[in-house]
Amino acid sequence: MSSNHLFQYSVVSALMDGVAETGITISDLLARGDHGLGTFRHMVGEMIILDGTLYDMKVDGSVIALDSKACAEETAPFAMITKFEPTATASKELQNKDSLAETLSQLLPGTKNHYLAFRVEGLFKSVTVRTVGGQQSPGESLAELGKRQASHSFQDIRGTIVGFRSPTFMQGISVAGDHLHFLSEDKDSGGHILAFEGDGDLDVAVAPITAVNLQLPTDDDFNRAKLARDDEGIAAVEG
Amino acid sequence: MSSNHLFQYSVVSALMDGVAETGITISDLLARGDHGLGTFRHMVGEMIILDGTLYDMKVDGSVIALDSKACAEETAPFAMITKFEPTATASKELQNKDSLAETLSQLLPGTKNHYLAFRVEGLFKSVTVRTVGGQQSPGESLAELGKRQASHSFQDIRGTIVGFRSPTFMQGISVAGDHLHFLSEDKDSGGHILAFEGDGDLDVAVAPITAVNLQLPTDDDFNRAKLARDDEGIAAVEG
Repeated sequence: MSSNHLFQYSVVSALMDGVAETGITISDLLARGDHGLGTFRHMVGEMIILDGTLYDMKVDGSVIALDSKACAEETAPFAMITKFEPTATASKELQNKDSLAETLSQLLPGTKNHYLAFRVEGLFKSVTVRTVGGQQSPGESLAELGKRQASHSFQDIRGTIVGFRSPTFMQGISVAGDHLHFLSEDKDSGGHILAFEGDGDLDVAVAPITAVNLQLPTDDDFNRAKLARDDEGIAAVEG
Repeated sequence: MSSNHLFQYSVVSALMDGVAETGITISDLLARGDHGLGTFRHMVGEMIILDGTLYDMKVDGSVIALDSKACAEETAPFAMITKFEPTATASKELQNKDSLAETLSQLLPGTKNHYLAFRVEGLFKSVTVRTVGGQQSPGESLAELGKRQASHSFQDIRGTIVGFRSPTFMQGISVAGDHLHFLSEDKDSGGHILAFEGDGDLDVAVAPITAVNLQLPTDDDFNRAKLARDDEGIAAVEG
């Protein structure tokens, strides 16, 4: 795939409807890029793809890098990935998610209706993440899982944020707005970012995305799903 | 592009917002497939792509095939195209759009949340089409154009329907439901189908689409557009 093209497997509304029984194999996914995020079968854990390596961030806060055997066997019911080639960079103090959002918009003005891929690296005073623990029964919705998500806070930690911004009109397909996953430099901790505070300058790199390759699942669960857009539900678990 | 992958340029909501000043060149579009539909710069006329040739169906009911010079120069602000390879076919009497919709669902069950590409060929008792006449001022919305669209009825006419079905959850991106353009066998008449009645058996061919390549425009008009989903507006002009 060309640089800064987005490949997305399934749609967020399908996760909201609990469609997580099968998916794209991790090997197939990694063939599409080197920068990404997603979840695993039955929504057990959070996925981050950094420099072409895919990590499984588990509900207990631990992290493992998937080896080639695991990549061939495991599947993702939802994932976004790109071959990331930043077109703008900055070194900047960031107080929180809002200041990151502002910085991205300043770095790439005139992209309100585009996707962005971005990466933030450096030292953080604190990072608060959540990790979903997986479905307790088949078809359980992401909103239900969100109610019992585990949250962890890390202090004075070096690491990287891998993120995507999706335009408002793609809500339900993707997660409208900024969607951030974190991985510590020692690759020991991470998750879906709820909040963060930078410590000194952070390195921000971003690229616009205007080509989106959407792969729809072919299983019966997907085709039976309602896939109604649920703005509040998505904001509650993916905000 | 692989067979039965959809390439779509821009989103229907952008047409609703009147974004039609620029677009993909017809040559670039035709490189992606042989079966498609769309519109032209300033929404002047209806586009149909049949067996790899692109036709411009004008507001006066006339039709021209674009030559290579025109293909290099003209642009489409919105289009859908695939390399069509039917996976199911039937020969069937079709009373109207509803009976076509039913036939497609019977031919490819379990595709509620997928796209379909289809083609219908044969003799029609009647085909009623509309053709939008183009923006009278820059940025005029498709809903406004729809109010003064020209409608034509053809009787006892041989021809082909080129169509796409888009899943409900893609409303606003694509046109949810069936979207049909017609071209007569003599390539002299056509347009966006409002209604039709078949005469005897029609040849129906259909393929499921699960891979969607969405190309977003990069011009300022697109990035300034609101792109709010307007179900009623889309139904009024694309139903």
